[in-house]
Amino acid sequence: MNNDNINLWVVGSIGIDDITTPKEARCNVLGGSVTHACAAASFFTKVGAVGVVGSDFPHEYIERYQRLGIDLSGLQQQEGATFRWSGVYESDFINRRTLKTELGVFGDFKPELPPSYRAAPYVLLGNINPELQEHLLAQVEGDPFVVADTMDLWINIARPALNRVISRVDMVMLNDSEARLLTRCHNLCNCASLILDMGPKYVVIKKGEHGAHLFTRDSTSIIPAFPVADVSDPTGAGDSFAGAFLGWLSRQNTIDIPQLRRGLCTGAVVAAYTVEAFGLESLEQLTMGKIENRYQQLLSMIDIRA
Amino acid sequence: MNNDNINLWVVGSIGIDDITTPKEARCNVLGGSVTHACAAASFFTKVGAVGVVGSDFPHEYIERYQRLGIDLSGLQQQEGATFRWSGVYESDFINRRTLKTELGVFGDFKPELPPSYRAAPYVLLGNINPELQEHLLAQVEGDPFVVADTMDLWINIARPALNRVISRVDMVMLNDSEARLLTRCHNLCNCASLILDMGPKYVVIKKGEHGAHLFTRDSTSIIPAFPVADVSDPTGAGDSFAGAFLGWLSRQNTIDIPQLRRGLCTGAVVAAYTVEAFGLESLEQLTMGKIENRYQQLLSMIDIRA
Repeated sequence: MNNDNINLWVVGSIGIDDITTPKEARCNVLGGSVTHACAAASFFTKVGAVGVVGSDFPHEYIERYQRLGIDLSGLQQQEGATFRWSGVYESDFINRRTLKTELGVFGDFKPELPPSYRAAPYVLLGNINPELQEHLLAQVEGDPFVVADTMDLWINIARPALNRVISRVDMVMLNDSEARLLTRCHNLCNCASLILDMGPKYVVIKKGEHGAHLFTRDSTSIIPAFPVADVSDPTGAGDSFAGAFLGWLSRQNTIDIPQLRRGLCTGAVVAAYTVEAFGLESLEQLTMGKIENRYQQLLSMIDIRA
Repeated sequence: MNNDNINLWVVGSIGIDDITTPKEARCNVLGGSVTHACAAASFFTKVGAVGVVGSDFPHEYIERYQRLGIDLSGLQQQEGATFRWSGVYESDFINRRTLKTELGVFGDFKPELPPSYRAAPYVLLGNINPELQEHLLAQVEGDPFVVADTMDLWINIARPALNRVISRVDMVMLNDSEARLLTRCHNLCNCASLILDMGPKYVVIKKGEHGAHLFTRDSTSIIPAFPVADVSDPTGAGDSFAGAFLGWLSRQNTIDIPQLRRGLCTGAVVAAYTVEAFGLESLEQLTMGKIENRYQQLLSMIDIRA
């Protein structure tokens, strides 16, 4: 063990996004699940990125990761184009239409864990092919707390591998539509129960602006969203929620329901900051003081005993 | 003043519903906003119904109101047919298609307040023509705490009268789609701000299974929904939420943010019971012990300090 060992690593996409919202259009926004999750986690812990970028990836973006203190030993740079996504949000700032998905080097991504990541006690398996999630799980040492995300694509085309991943992780974190697709069930309490049957001890179902629920076999927790009056770009909200949650948790290093609730509320607060600007812009201005301030505000909004 | 004076009266529809859900179809279900709101309020306070039924209204239904202790001095029975509604819920148990709306005697409803209602300190103006809401407000004595509901129809066709009602009441309680229609704005924080500009001190925006928000000029409260795994019939959830809230509040008789939050959480608990069976069936089996039990459960689900 040496000082370079990280506490949390995140695997997923790194992309350059063209994003149109009802308010504004922006090109070449640094995005992807790894970007948002690592940036959010970086406030709390030593986090490493596992991802791939192409030879066209601007060095300025590497510097932005570095300024946030994100470890890049797990970042591969390969000949070819960086993953590019382009989409348009509808007037509700929730529904979106994908205009373009160009996988580039992400299409042949074969993630490997650097030695300094292998014993990390916290892992976020972001949305990639579940066979690659398995490939990475095979490289971990010890018994980390592992959270897995996925998406409709893998639920539809890679179900056996996804089921194996779900059976091996501690927590599954999905949005409501993914939970419904995975279980072919509408009611979220019942979705959670069916996912818990697949193996994980914890299920988090995200509902965007409506908050999230944490389910275990014998408890339900309601996690409020922080109300945001001025949304600029919802892209990455779910990833920054997950990243901040795990970053915060890895700093406490105690896992029980009260700590998980506090970590998820912290995730809700950081996600609320994320959507107030494009890409990483808001997180790059964020401070622990601002996080703590909104966290206390969020608590005061749900405090029934006050 | 005498013993017959009531603490809360509710005006709105009384109907006989034919309801189809993905699980079951039921005919001749006693429904309407007055029915659900008064039944929910009846656990907490002396509540009176202001509504109209036709000559076909079964005496058995009158007896059901009476068994719940609902005062019926404000109930008119007129020659003709009772209001009938028929609808089909989609697989999500939220979206619904109306098959039939037959106003009957409700189409000519001219509500009047019995003397024993005029000094009631709490009033729920359920969804009826805002001119009739105004007509009733003109009959009240003293300075009651008045909550007004409405619906898309009146927002679209009776805007001047609706604006006058909103400017005169203490609280507007709407669901999210109605708040958006009323303000032509999507973000609920901004909707609330625009409605507060219209006059009321409090705005509650209901989000069904996602809970509700209470807004004032300088505070936001997040009211969680009680998670229900087995929904039978969502009809009347919003009305029982409002009725239980105001019934509970009228019993405390203190109006501040903490009390409003507790009352709204009580509303959420009673609404969750309502949707577990058709019409009034669940509320007719309900006890204060069951309400208190779920209230404590709901609090424990959002308790971040535990």
